[in-house]
Amino acid sequence: MTFDEAQKAIGAQFKPVFLGEEEAVLLEAYNRVLSEDVISSLDIPPFNRSTVDGFAVKAEDTFGAEENQFVTLKVSGVVNVGEQPKVVLAKGEAVEIVTGAPIPEGADAVVMVEDTERESDELHVFSAVTVNENVMKKGSDIKKGAIVLKTGQVLSSSEIGVLAALGLTKAKVFKIPIVAVLSTGGEVTEPGKALLEGKIYDINAYSLSTAVIESGAKPVYFGVVPDDKAVLSKAMQTALASSDMVITSGGVSVGPRDYTPQIVDSLGKPGIIVYGIAVKPGKPTTVGFVGDKPVFSLPGHPTSALLIFYLLARPLIQRLAGRPAAPMKMVRAFAGSRMFSAKGRRTFVMVKIEFDKDCRLIAEPVETGASGAITTLSKADGFVEIPENEQFVDVDEEVAVVLFRNTAKA
Amino acid sequence: MTFDEAQKAIGAQFKPVFLGEEEAVLLEAYNRVLSEDVISSLDIPPFNRSTVDGFAVKAEDTFGAEENQFVTLKVSGVVNVGEQPKVVLAKGEAVEIVTGAPIPEGADAVVMVEDTERESDELHVFSAVTVNENVMKKGSDIKKGAIVLKTGQVLSSSEIGVLAALGLTKAKVFKIPIVAVLSTGGEVTEPGKALLEGKIYDINAYSLSTAVIESGAKPVYFGVVPDDKAVLSKAMQTALASSDMVITSGGVSVGPRDYTPQIVDSLGKPGIIVYGIAVKPGKPTTVGFVGDKPVFSLPGHPTSALLIFYLLARPLIQRLAGRPAAPMKMVRAFAGSRMFSAKGRRTFVMVKIEFDKDCRLIAEPVETGASGAITTLSKADGFVEIPENEQFVDVDEEVAVVLFRNTAKA
Repeated sequence: MTFDEAQKAIGAQFKPVFLGEEEAVLLEAYNRVLSEDVISSLDIPPFNRSTVDGFAVKAEDTFGAEENQFVTLKVSGVVNVGEQPKVVLAKGEAVEIVTGAPIPEGADAVVMVEDTERESDELHVFSAVTVNENVMKKGSDIKKGAIVLKTGQVLSSSEIGVLAALGLTKAKVFKIPIVAVLSTGGEVTEPGKALLEGKIYDINAYSLSTAVIESGAKPVYFGVVPDDKAVLSKAMQTALASSDMVITSGGVSVGPRDYTPQIVDSLGKPGIIVYGIAVKPGKPTTVGFVGDKPVFSLPGHPTSALLIFYLLARPLIQRLAGRPAAPMKMVRAFAGSRMFSAKGRRTFVMVKIEFDKDCRLIAEPVETGASGAITTLSKADGFVEIPENEQFVDVDEEVAVVLFRNTAKA
Repeated sequence: MTFDEAQKAIGAQFKPVFLGEEEAVLLEAYNRVLSEDVISSLDIPPFNRSTVDGFAVKAEDTFGAEENQFVTLKVSGVVNVGEQPKVVLAKGEAVEIVTGAPIPEGADAVVMVEDTERESDELHVFSAVTVNENVMKKGSDIKKGAIVLKTGQVLSSSEIGVLAALGLTKAKVFKIPIVAVLSTGGEVTEPGKALLEGKIYDINAYSLSTAVIESGAKPVYFGVVPDDKAVLSKAMQTALASSDMVITSGGVSVGPRDYTPQIVDSLGKPGIIVYGIAVKPGKPTTVGFVGDKPVFSLPGHPTSALLIFYLLARPLIQRLAGRPAAPMKMVRAFAGSRMFSAKGRRTFVMVKIEFDKDCRLIAEPVETGASGAITTLSKADGFVEIPENEQFVDVDEEVAVVLFRNTAKA
């Protein structure tokens, strides 16, 4: 199955099930996703507001005022911020006002303090104002009843500020999807345990769990499941019952002992729908569904597992979380070396990006040494994709680098 | 003071104090920052490992083997993944082996299963291998004693995978800086409380607290402090005593009642070092230090406050957190309209970015209506910077847009 076919098959099968909503405290709602449209319960600003320090007036009282010919008004009071005006403005009067304070009744404009001279109760105005000048009208920013933010909006500092403006301290948000992370493979040992002869530590569960967090979901680590069909089947059932998606790694392609696809097929329809993909790396990937729940069985090699996760599992997690399936961050760079593709397979070349002395961004393939090297993970900033029908990307060709993280390595 | 002068003055005064370290559980260490170099306590892989399914052999026993002329070896056993080999290979022998399994003593290479034919105990080998072929040597990925990750490394999925490979379940990380967030201004009310006549809700504390989280620190909301010098001074002292940085907003420039700079000066040396900046928006910003602790007093307008936070406070928070002061994400776009600068001031124009029909990314200024509009916050994707000595950016000119968030609005 080609990469495009696999992507299409998964897309056709996947239904982004509604996982429920909950109330999040606004100060802790960063990066959560709104589960309903937010409608303003108030006008913002809630009153006509001065946008300058100066004097509230009737605009018509200032007509004719200019630099060399002032008009004179009588100062009849003062309005401070945060208080309801105690004065009502009559014709020929002015009321002292500061930025943000409510415009008193009877006034329809504000003259800036710079355009006035005050002598006791007399105010000389040197500049005419028009109606509404220096006034921010009630509801001009947000009207009561208006939709302010929409379902699916991810909350960052700006949106949380907007919700606070409405006086809210909570927001209705989508529940965070739960993703079960299992490891298989007879040689794999959980970190923290003693490493017996012939064993290696479980890398994938840790890197994949973190990638699940990055994608906006909560991982649950089920540990390393022993290489026994009954035990693995039981673990898989528990994982499916308690989560919204299951990710296993290792096991696939190691031969006779790999029970994962059989087990997925045995647990429910439609079972495995992608059995191996013509990609490099990541060929032994299988993807199935038990009912609506996706089950990804990723390769044992850490870089391959993480790559296929980013390409195929991450968009599903984002949609389960109610998020737009945001593409990964990408930068344009120039190939620092020729990069070869694997014949007939969509190839993803791990690269490190660096500026050269002419400040051109260069993508240099990360030496993987032997396949399965762990250090590839920490050295690579991202990958370059080579289509099935191309043999290589040449030196100095412009390439799109999809980034694993926000910033290149220090 | 120009923007550059303000930035320089802050940089000269700021010392990134060491805030201490703690142990983080690895599965919850996403986005934390390593406070020590991590040195590998083991060789990875911990043993010579087969990189293919096939047969472990002595390379010299295969010399001369080719497609039309096989050599014959005797299969003397099998090694599975995860187990210590029970066999020692003698001359003329082959041992069945799978990917990831340890190379048995006496063997120095692996023949791929595709290059063999087996008949009971007899193995026909159709391809010669050289010493170490298809073998990943012990320590070839990471040597015991090698520095694997360095102090200051931010932990993402790849790095957490690397730490798991070493068998670690915890990591030493920098403590998260605490940032106190206070609001001032007589018209400001805490969200959740009743909104009295003439008042508006506190937006800044919410948007700034979230921006503090985004920058890698923990905000503590001190609420709206009443407009009283003694009360504000007391709140400021508590904030300074219990946090690593203080951010206030509102109050500055509202005139006679603004006590913040006086209080900062009264609490310790050097006091206020930046008193207003020639920028638009954000002119009334003041920045001071009480001992080593920075105190930012940001404008009351939500967009101005957030902008100045991103420009001046965020890099300090990142350095307190032990992080590289990562620049904000930036994209290149074309100006959709002419953008004017404020005379003699560094101007930041809030923009929304969108692709036009030719797939060019266009930066369009967000209509701010009156200054202080809250909706500007949720509409803007980022800002365009215009230097002091330029009057405008013309339509279609290429501009760098600094982004407030990772993705443009949906």
